Amino acid sequence: MQAKPQDSHARWWPSSVTADSPASWNEPSQLEAYKMTSRPRGVCLILNNHNFAKAREAVLEQKNLKDRTGTDVDAAALTRVFSKLHFIIKEYRDLTAEQIRETVNIYRCKDHKDKDCFVCCILSHGKKGIIYGVDGQEVPIQELTTSFTGQNCHSLAGKPKVFFVQACQGEACQKGVTIETDAGEQDSSVETDARFQLDCIPAEADFLLGMATLQDYVSYRSPRQGTWYIQALCQHLEYSCPRGEDILTILTAVNQEVSRKSCNQNAEKQMPQPSFTLRKKLIFSVN
Amino acid sequence: MQAKPQDSHARWWPSSVTADSPASWNEPSQLEAYKMTSRPRGVCLILNNHNFAKAREAVLEQKNLKDRTGTDVDAAALTRVFSKLHFIIKEYRDLTAEQIRETVNIYRCKDHKDKDCFVCCILSHGKKGIIYGVDGQEVPIQELTTSFTGQNCHSLAGKPKVFFVQACQGEACQKGVTIETDAGEQDSSVETDARFQLDCIPAEADFLLGMATLQDYVSYRSPRQGTWYIQALCQHLEYSCPRGEDILTILTAVNQEVSRKSCNQNAEKQMPQPSFTLRKKLIFSVN
Repeated sequence: MQAKPQDSHARWWPSSVTADSPASWNEPSQLEAYKMTSRPRGVCLILNNHNFAKAREAVLEQKNLKDRTGTDVDAAALTRVFSKLHFIIKEYRDLTAEQIRETVNIYRCKDHKDKDCFVCCILSHGKKGIIYGVDGQEVPIQELTTSFTGQNCHSLAGKPKVFFVQACQGEACQKGVTIETDAGEQDSSVETDARFQLDCIPAEADFLLGMATLQDYVSYRSPRQGTWYIQALCQHLEYSCPRGEDILTILTAVNQEVSRKSCNQNAEKQMPQPSFTLRKKLIFSVN
Repeated sequence: MQAKPQDSHARWWPSSVTADSPASWNEPSQLEAYKMTSRPRGVCLILNNHNFAKAREAVLEQKNLKDRTGTDVDAAALTRVFSKLHFIIKEYRDLTAEQIRETVNIYRCKDHKDKDCFVCCILSHGKKGIIYGVDGQEVPIQELTTSFTGQNCHSLAGKPKVFFVQACQGEACQKGVTIETDAGEQDSSVETDARFQLDCIPAEADFLLGMATLQDYVSYRSPRQGTWYIQALCQHLEYSCPRGEDILTILTAVNQEVSRKSCNQNAEKQMPQPSFTLRKKLIFSVN
């Protein structure tokens, strides 16, 4: 084990940092933005699972999947924000795994030719890389995202495909950790969300996956509030999109917001981990 | 399954998009940047594994781990670029798994108090979530990144911790796919890299992981060229850091570059998938 001395390193830096040097095959160029001008921009699909009675009845090992109180607040916030961003909102409530597959397939088969983007928001229970239908059956996240690869959905090829996942981890949800909120309230119920892994988006360009990770203790303090992640996401989209900020900058601010909130309790921290194969700036312009 | 009609959604948008509205507890503020002014900025640790003779001799199932021809070109490019960005380069060559652990532990225990950042570049063979020492023994990526959490390395708490991983997947490396290069050359050997998963960075803020994914066919066309991912990364850092671009924008451009190159062959596509828990803009300023 030995540390190698630093190379002399003045060789290629000075030449290629010249601002006006002629473009060559390997000269990086200014990063462009995805086209985002179509009206509507595209579909914003919201899969909103609240009532897990079917799972509790049908599947013995899923009898702990509680209803997701507060999820309608998240769905409403997403609806408001993405409507303002000129998306067509398509919300589906309380779908079984099979119905999730069918629904996603409907939008996979649609002609998105005149659309510039596709957004899918998933609000449910889940575990590593999986979301649950309200019947407690599993759907791998990657199955959903892979439906929209260029091969599977030609009319979205080259266009940004954005997935936001808020999926509460079944097992941890029953813990009911008590936390102290910002306002000093006690006895709030806290539910946890799954850490989803990469592998959730295909090895193909133009995907963005934003989701809350394991140790993702989400507070449903009141039906008014929804989850930290989705609420922070909507708040920052609302604030920053009109200012021309790109989505990665916005998701960085969401990280900031969510990690700040997490610091207020003894509970394990929530930390979203966006991952992306975007090739251009993604800006949800409001005009 | 029913589509819910869109909510009325004019409720909170107009008020909070007002640019000069007074800040409140939940009003997003302008995203700040990580401090990046210390001289040096911090350590850029390069773990550069080229010679896998030990693995071939010692571990039966690793007898296919070829030497990583071209890796020195990557290490040299990283050295040049990060030197220019005011990092202290510490390169280690041909470390066994145990030596990798020891080396990382040295830097974990160092006092980074006067530094603003920590960068670690790993050039080796690997597989899902794992890198190999030159003896063919495994080191989980998460073990390396977790060494630098706030708890494990106090002096880096709140500072950006950046990992770039170029790790060639052992099994696929022997395929030797022939590709046609941009210049029309034939008979180039192509080696593949592992798709590493999330779980590779801890659920803690201020981490960035950039790495090539599975289906990551990396060309070692000549010892002059190195890998697509690292070369594109260095090229774009070199070009865009002096322009004040942030790292996520740069990695988006790297995605663009690498996916463009991948389109030129029949081989499966390479697609880097950066993931991050950054809370602020990360800009490697040159001044």
